[in-house]
Amino acid sequence: MDLKHYMTTVGQQARAASKILARAPTALKNQTLEAIAQQLEQQRQTLIDANQHDLEAGKIKGLDEALLDRLTLNPARIASMVEGLRQMITLPDPIGQITDLNYRPTGIQVGRMRVPLGVVGIIYESRPNVTTDAAGLCLKSGNATILRGGSEALHSNQAIARCIHAGLTAVGLPTTAVQVIETTDRAAVGELIQMNQYVDIIIPRGGKGLIERISREAKIPVIKHLDGICHTYIDDQADLDKALTVAYNAKTQRYGTCNTMETLLVAKTIAPQILPQLAARYQAVGVELRGCPETQALLPTIKAATEEDWFTEYLAPILSIKIVNDLEEAIAHIEHYGSHHTDAIITENWTKARRFLTEVDSSSVMVNASTRFSDGFEYGLGAEIGISTDKFHARGPVGLEGLTSQKYIVLGDGHIRK
Amino acid sequence: MDLKHYMTTVGQQARAASKILARAPTALKNQTLEAIAQQLEQQRQTLIDANQHDLEAGKIKGLDEALLDRLTLNPARIASMVEGLRQMITLPDPIGQITDLNYRPTGIQVGRMRVPLGVVGIIYESRPNVTTDAAGLCLKSGNATILRGGSEALHSNQAIARCIHAGLTAVGLPTTAVQVIETTDRAAVGELIQMNQYVDIIIPRGGKGLIERISREAKIPVIKHLDGICHTYIDDQADLDKALTVAYNAKTQRYGTCNTMETLLVAKTIAPQILPQLAARYQAVGVELRGCPETQALLPTIKAATEEDWFTEYLAPILSIKIVNDLEEAIAHIEHYGSHHTDAIITENWTKARRFLTEVDSSSVMVNASTRFSDGFEYGLGAEIGISTDKFHARGPVGLEGLTSQKYIVLGDGHIRK
Repeated sequence: MDLKHYMTTVGQQARAASKILARAPTALKNQTLEAIAQQLEQQRQTLIDANQHDLEAGKIKGLDEALLDRLTLNPARIASMVEGLRQMITLPDPIGQITDLNYRPTGIQVGRMRVPLGVVGIIYESRPNVTTDAAGLCLKSGNATILRGGSEALHSNQAIARCIHAGLTAVGLPTTAVQVIETTDRAAVGELIQMNQYVDIIIPRGGKGLIERISREAKIPVIKHLDGICHTYIDDQADLDKALTVAYNAKTQRYGTCNTMETLLVAKTIAPQILPQLAARYQAVGVELRGCPETQALLPTIKAATEEDWFTEYLAPILSIKIVNDLEEAIAHIEHYGSHHTDAIITENWTKARRFLTEVDSSSVMVNASTRFSDGFEYGLGAEIGISTDKFHARGPVGLEGLTSQKYIVLGDGHIRK
Repeated sequence: MDLKHYMTTVGQQARAASKILARAPTALKNQTLEAIAQQLEQQRQTLIDANQHDLEAGKIKGLDEALLDRLTLNPARIASMVEGLRQMITLPDPIGQITDLNYRPTGIQVGRMRVPLGVVGIIYESRPNVTTDAAGLCLKSGNATILRGGSEALHSNQAIARCIHAGLTAVGLPTTAVQVIETTDRAAVGELIQMNQYVDIIIPRGGKGLIERISREAKIPVIKHLDGICHTYIDDQADLDKALTVAYNAKTQRYGTCNTMETLLVAKTIAPQILPQLAARYQAVGVELRGCPETQALLPTIKAATEEDWFTEYLAPILSIKIVNDLEEAIAHIEHYGSHHTDAIITENWTKARRFLTEVDSSSVMVNASTRFSDGFEYGLGAEIGISTDKFHARGPVGLEGLTSQKYIVLGDGHIRK
């Protein structure tokens, strides 16, 4: 079948299914999530076999270890996908929620009702668990989904899709509510991001290159997640123990995540007390340090940080360190070099904490806490479909609410405008 | 000066000013609005003289009466611009508002803080009052503004801009917080909608052609307002008096507005009781009626409505009328022919009212009220910068909140992720 025709059909089916999902009662949506969870449990061996097929093809193609690891489905990962779906059942249904319903002087009542966006297109790389996470969040928020996973995960994703479809069928919802693109033709992505009559939002999950290309070419709003160049600023009025603990955690709890600290800023007057101790801790676990000249003066064995370092998301056991004069310089550095993802201050000073919270323009701003907390689960969203580094529509971790919109409702009793 | 260079300078200045505005305290923003209001009052004659210049040029250019009327500034309209600014002073400042600040099981507190979008670009036609409305709303919401008004209003807008700049200067804010594009070169709009490093959102106000072109070409999110094909559905369980009053008001209170009813849907069993009376009222004020064959059977003198009529926003004293079997057919008609702007049901039936509110996918959905209420002032937003027919980011009338975003804040006491 011709690709354009195939994608148009997928789009039309998604649009039709979205009308049904938008009206689906909470109980039915929860039953669907449970039915899919049960299918995944029952089909565990089928999923692992299909995944084996992808893994073998991946090894022959020469995929690297990290990619093969992300691609792997095993009983523990399937259990975690199931657990994710069951957690979504416990989340409140955002759809139909009415807020701010107030009387106006004219006598009408005006409020807002939360509604689904419609059809969500998700483009992701080779992690099969994204398939159930994304499908589940979109179902719970009353949206139809079109999923385009990485070609390396094709068999795994199709096996997962069969479980999702069996779950939908079991509760009487159309299987077109969640469609997994069946072709590995890259042009399918090009079609998907142009179909603005059928798709309401695109969420790309993957490398910066993929996301930039999709944002540039899409004719549909995109929830973007670009870099996470996260900072921790240790203020001169920081509690030393907290500073040591939090700054260590923010870098070392995991290296490859977007909310990992990449640059440490330290107030000049506190640097001599804290940096030698902190550096020893980092070095003990193999974190490479790169510093500004003042940092190098305190830590003579470390490499110099270049201008490029301050702009770099390492996603690796590397940390750049800069000594700054004060809060102003710290905020200015974050503004200039940061990516507006997540930034933290460590301080006991009330006014500086308040200023940092107000003035730092990032999707998450923290006081005395590790940047690693910046995550949908940690924030209580239940799950996240991505983290937005944009300001428009959704910012920071995007859960169910980010997949919805609000319409106005007006209740009257024969009211007319005078 | 070269246009690209001029626009880049405007963009850079706006970005720099946006940082100052984002931190401006509420009192300072209110003082600015008051200072601008006073300038407008003091410069009333200067404004009228500048406007006279535009009006004369417009007459020579052969602008039509409606356009000349929209272009006109007189003492009453200036007073209304001043009043608009003073109303904005009374609105709560959305910036810095913290909501949903809750403890998580890990001990961190997570909440959301409302922040400005940054730089708002507004492209509008020849109504000079938009200049102060838009500048005021953006100021109050902590955003810098770039305004591009219609070339016919150039002198009026520049005179208004001088008042705005005098107001900004009086309180010590940079005049670059509100910039009015000084060239009538149409290419300036093309530049403005591409400058995604300097401009965060584009709001076009004007005809559908302008908005479609801008949406197509912009590299920046656009808050779109396309058609308002609004419906009122008179259910078979409607109260006859309410139906007559509301349906009459929705069409005739003003003809040229986007929230005016363009199509009336009437349940088959109630049509013989209501349509003859209602038609007589419409015809008494000169509204041309166009009907489906069943409507024509009841109102034999009226014209037939064509398929095209159901898709038409008349913005004129014309109304299309269709008789439908039931609620389902009414909702299906609205879904197919409507523009998802504002739609109303007239009914005394609880279940049908609830179904209409839930199932009609429009930016405003009403029960027993005139579609003419769909408006920022009527909804209590204080003022509106536009009405969004999109679902993304903002839907329906857009006031201060639509010009903001929310960042997450995390408050801890040395908390780390385990």
